[in-house]
Amino acid sequence: MLKVAICGGSGYTGIELLRILAGHPMVEVTAVTSEKSAGRRLRDLFPHLHTYGSMIYEPMEKERLLGKAELFFLALPHGASQEAAHYFFSMKKYVIDLSADYRISDAPVYESWYGTPHQFPATLQKAVYGLPEIYRNRIRKSRIIANPGCYPTGALLGLLPAVRNKIVDTGSIIIDSKSGASGAGRKADVAVAYCEVNEGFKAYGIGTHRHTPEIEQEISGLAGKKVTVDFTPHLLPVDRGILTTIYAKLSKTISQDKVFAAYHAAYKKEPFVRVLGPGVYPNIKNVRGSNFCEIGLKLNARTNTLIIVSAIDNLVKGASGQAVHNMNIMMGFEETEGLSSIALFP
Amino acid sequence: MLKVAICGGSGYTGIELLRILAGHPMVEVTAVTSEKSAGRRLRDLFPHLHTYGSMIYEPMEKERLLGKAELFFLALPHGASQEAAHYFFSMKKYVIDLSADYRISDAPVYESWYGTPHQFPATLQKAVYGLPEIYRNRIRKSRIIANPGCYPTGALLGLLPAVRNKIVDTGSIIIDSKSGASGAGRKADVAVAYCEVNEGFKAYGIGTHRHTPEIEQEISGLAGKKVTVDFTPHLLPVDRGILTTIYAKLSKTISQDKVFAAYHAAYKKEPFVRVLGPGVYPNIKNVRGSNFCEIGLKLNARTNTLIIVSAIDNLVKGASGQAVHNMNIMMGFEETEGLSSIALFP
Amino acid sequence: MLKVAICGGSGYTGIELLRILAGHPMVEVTAVTSEKSAGRRLRDLFPHLHTYGSMIYEPMEKERLLGKAELFFLALPHGASQEAAHYFFSMKKYVIDLSADYRISDAPVYESWYGTPHQFPATLQKAVYGLPEIYRNRIRKSRIIANPGCYPTGALLGLLPAVRNKIVDTGSIIIDSKSGASGAGRKADVAVAYCEVNEGFKAYGIGTHRHTPEIEQEISGLAGKKVTVDFTPHLLPVDRGILTTIYAKLSKTISQDKVFAAYHAAYKKEPFVRVLGPGVYPNIKNVRGSNFCEIGLKLNARTNTLIIVSAIDNLVKGASGQAVHNMNIMMGFEETEGLSSIALFP
Amino acid sequence: MLKVAICGGSGYTGIELLRILAGHPMVEVTAVTSEKSAGRRLRDLFPHLHTYGSMIYEPMEKERLLGKAELFFLALPHGASQEAAHYFFSMKKYVIDLSADYRISDAPVYESWYGTPHQFPATLQKAVYGLPEIYRNRIRKSRIIANPGCYPTGALLGLLPAVRNKIVDTGSIIIDSKSGASGAGRKADVAVAYCEVNEGFKAYGIGTHRHTPEIEQEISGLAGKKVTVDFTPHLLPVDRGILTTIYAKLSKTISQDKVFAAYHAAYKKEPFVRVLGPGVYPNIKNVRGSNFCEIGLKLNARTNTLIIVSAIDNLVKGASGQAVHNMNIMMGFEETEGLSSIALFP
Repeated sequence: MLKVAICGGSGYTGIELLRILAGHPMVEVTAVTSEKSAGRRLRDLFPHLHTYGSMIYEPMEKERLLGKAELFFLALPHGASQEAAHYFFSMKKYVIDLSADYRISDAPVYESWYGTPHQFPATLQKAVYGLPEIYRNRIRKSRIIANPGCYPTGALLGLLPAVRNKIVDTGSIIIDSKSGASGAGRKADVAVAYCEVNEGFKAYGIGTHRHTPEIEQEISGLAGKKVTVDFTPHLLPVDRGILTTIYAKLSKTISQDKVFAAYHAAYKKEPFVRVLGPGVYPNIKNVRGSNFCEIGLKLNARTNTLIIVSAIDNLVKGASGQAVHNMNIMMGFEETEGLSSIALFP
Repeated sequence: MLKVAICGGSGYTGIELLRILAGHPMVEVTAVTSEKSAGRRLRDLFPHLHTYGSMIYEPMEKERLLGKAELFFLALPHGASQEAAHYFFSMKKYVIDLSADYRISDAPVYESWYGTPHQFPATLQKAVYGLPEIYRNRIRKSRIIANPGCYPTGALLGLLPAVRNKIVDTGSIIIDSKSGASGAGRKADVAVAYCEVNEGFKAYGIGTHRHTPEIEQEISGLAGKKVTVDFTPHLLPVDRGILTTIYAKLSKTISQDKVFAAYHAAYKKEPFVRVLGPGVYPNIKNVRGSNFCEIGLKLNARTNTLIIVSAIDNLVKGASGQAVHNMNIMMGFEETEGLSSIALFP
Repeated sequence: MLKVAICGGSGYTGIELLRILAGHPMVEVTAVTSEKSAGRRLRDLFPHLHTYGSMIYEPMEKERLLGKAELFFLALPHGASQEAAHYFFSMKKYVIDLSADYRISDAPVYESWYGTPHQFPATLQKAVYGLPEIYRNRIRKSRIIANPGCYPTGALLGLLPAVRNKIVDTGSIIIDSKSGASGAGRKADVAVAYCEVNEGFKAYGIGTHRHTPEIEQEISGLAGKKVTVDFTPHLLPVDRGILTTIYAKLSKTISQDKVFAAYHAAYKKEPFVRVLGPGVYPNIKNVRGSNFCEIGLKLNARTNTLIIVSAIDNLVKGASGQAVHNMNIMMGFEETEGLSSIALFP
Repeated sequence: MLKVAICGGSGYTGIELLRILAGHPMVEVTAVTSEKSAGRRLRDLFPHLHTYGSMIYEPMEKERLLGKAELFFLALPHGASQEAAHYFFSMKKYVIDLSADYRISDAPVYESWYGTPHQFPATLQKAVYGLPEIYRNRIRKSRIIANPGCYPTGALLGLLPAVRNKIVDTGSIIIDSKSGASGAGRKADVAVAYCEVNEGFKAYGIGTHRHTPEIEQEISGLAGKKVTVDFTPHLLPVDRGILTTIYAKLSKTISQDKVFAAYHAAYKKEPFVRVLGPGVYPNIKNVRGSNFCEIGLKLNARTNTLIIVSAIDNLVKGASGQAVHNMNIMMGFEETEGLSSIALFP
């Protein structure tokens, strides 16, 4: 049994890790931290975690945690992860960082979007961006993974085959994303109060959201040149799910069938991506609680535009499920171990 | 008191007309029709309409209705309105048609998108597209109004100042819209069942939605040339509201301040459009139950793109409220009569 | 025009007062206070209040406010209202207190449930419990009104005819209430975060909720003897609405028809209560945004039990609408002035 | 591998069986029927069932199905199950009937509530009511199980220890239940349309719901005498979950601690029931997607009443999960096999 610790276990991604790992046969969770809930039982905060019995939240004391686990999931706020990830990595542990701290490989770009310099550029260079559909081989050999952001996961899986196969003009990419409220985290904030979100819908952070450089970095990598995108996030009145609608002008004459063929070829061996048939489009409800990504496609001949729609559960494929997937790859487990549940529908 | 009849009064737009008109001091509703509920009291189907006392749904018998009212609101299904609108108009009545039947002035375009020819081309030429922010003067002199579709209303109010002022490249317009479930109408259909829509979100009709030619017709009119757009509707798990996120490349170098100035100039005298300040974006929750349209703007200098967001209540500004606004203009009433309620928040 | 001030105008009941009063032709809102938002425009916090133009939240400085208004709505937290109500009342102003501070006429009972003594027992004795359906005549002559709690309003309107007519055994009353999330107020608290409330449902404060003594006080008054009740509140995943299901054993043999007759008789002149027919039950959706209370009845002969169901909008009939109703009565306005809107459905 | 068939696999309980069985290591689903979807792939109706590959809905031809499976789950409408259950049982198969047809052991009582006589009284006498917490030993030896109704499951688990231990007066039981919309089934019906259910809440079938005799039968069995109860169902705007609030007068002087002790004793060995601590109450959100039942208790000394609250997922513990639990018991599998997932929170 692999011993794992979860640093930051009282937020939504932390408890989602606990939910998934409770069903993972190769893993034992040996420590869970929470600063503000230290000393309290997991089940007293979250009754559904009763299967963890009398397990208690611990304070985040790195030295003490070190001996408790071989692999550390970091579900800490951005910024706080920098040092923790560096510490555990330097102490020869496996690290999967769910924050943004190790996702932007270019430290000045990180600093310009996150407002704080990166203290550990050497460690940053070791980190692998944990999107298995792009970096499976590098993940396999790595000990430190920067788990992708929720929005970038949906956007990149939607764009990957189109960009790799040079189907679209990368100067024309527009990414219109809609996320459920759990993406904002678990916090005391009027902005996420029930009556403010329910029956509402809005855009936010237009042109300034921090997931923008992450998307651009990876699209640029796939395209082999620097790409800039429009990215607009919206807040959906649902618990979970991200639907991303992507628009890009075709770069060449191509039939819709050929586009589908490119997508099927790209994902046929992927355990967690399913490409839907023509005229069928994803629904976040069909992936809720699962690690799957659904993709739908439409080539609009009237406007010479490819429209790509992807759906994921932001807490699973967009965070904790993908983190477990990365763990499975790193540790040589079956990739789908712990992640085979079907979506909860309805 | 103006006597009005509502043809098709048991759907969501019909009962919304009844709700609004109950507070309109110059109007008396003298007849309401419903084929399947004929003979039943309004309040037995809709307890909130108890203020209509013992008023009963009638069958749609045009000749008998003729003497009952001076103005006819038609909230009938597309296709069914063609003949009814023509009949009442030809009998010298005022007609406000909430269906799509008289919105597309080019009969072949109508036929190609709606699959049925237009039987009354002469009447079609008389109909005025009832978006007051564009056609107020023509509405004032008309007797037959094609009330705009819900999606087109949100899209056109968002685009109007940018297109009129040639701020954007009209070849690059992308309209990503999200509508609440009342937009699908009141019907027995698994697709709109609570458990199918709740906690879900999806795109539908990508590139094929019938509101596309309506948007293109009006944008073309504003631009003075034929414009084609990408339009993608989505289904939101809320009762009411349409948020529309529009992307268009700038056609020239312009500052964000000047864009705001163009929008403020275009709408400063409009009673139902409010342009929000920089960094503030619309929320459908802030217009729910009201006839207002909120507009937010962002000029993304990194990508040379103007992003416009508009929010309306699809049943009010997107349907029945706009219909009452058109009536007020046609009849010379105060434009805001019956329409001054503030949004219901939360 | 009656000049009114709203003390505590940035919570949900405060902004609901602003929404309702915006449509009241006899009233001018001259001041709105908020400690934490003092200096900010109403519309900057709440875009739907744009009709208030550049009106600004003021700090709660009683002496300065005194000259600005003749009537003061207090939407302050429990405890904070005690002194403010006393002050404005003693300065000869009209006071409508939406807090619980003046609802419990027995000061020791107040202290035992609210944990703090009442500082102004003389003023307390002057206050009239503002449920018009019981105290209309006393309200008319009063200058200080204790506006009823949301749960008590629904429970009392449901029970009034049954208790007054001695139809039920008052020793057997069980009140099972379900309230929308706005009842918890507008606050930064994880417990009311969207993802905690949405798709959830729970009971809370069983046997200990502070509305219990308020219900018991009024039921005891109607019964002419001391009555104790079971009251269980629950949290519904909706913005607005309280549905109350009440169970009481019959105290005598009576037909269901006679029970209906008693209810119709009790409420036939009431502008805001409607009794539904046999087999028809209230839905909070049918009263949303309106000042109406719907009541349904079932006499279960198998168990000798009367089941009463009432529905109100907790922010309107359960708070701000009832406060305006009380103002209308006190000032001699038409009772329905500003309160005639129909529910927003759907 | 046990071969199982699902008769009626396109409703919510049918697809929930498919979801659960997809993760059950001892079971192979060999046939799924649906009259209206016969010939279509499961995944074409329900994309989340893509793991069933190209499996197709079959028509319900009993003779042909007979050879395909050893155990038949019947998720058919009430009435339709009578014959199917009898047939497969008489052909020596295992039958788990999720309809109400075999739950009421007294055929005249069945007929009086369901309006149709029972055709197979001999088979009816063989059927065991499948609530493992009461009938585990009989289930183990049975070949035909009447899987309990969703409301009865929540009510009975709440009442079992109190009734068995004679803590409450069985003449005073009031059961106030609130169910999510999936309890109404998957159907084309305006009454379950999104805009009718969302933001609404109502009681229905007061005193007449068909689950009443089922609850009374089992409570009578536990009490050793005929018991009549008040049962009121309500419709919650959530997908899943039933919260049941039960009121009963104490039959004797007892401390709250002793009541808790009785509940802990009753359920300490039960894998799917958890009794919460004093002051902590269940939330349907904490059991969503899981087979767990949460129970909370409050002894209200002021009114001499025990208030019991239980929460289940109506589709899991209230239907398909309990059916799989019954299968596990009948077949000698580990009881928790396929049912160990934690609730999906948030």
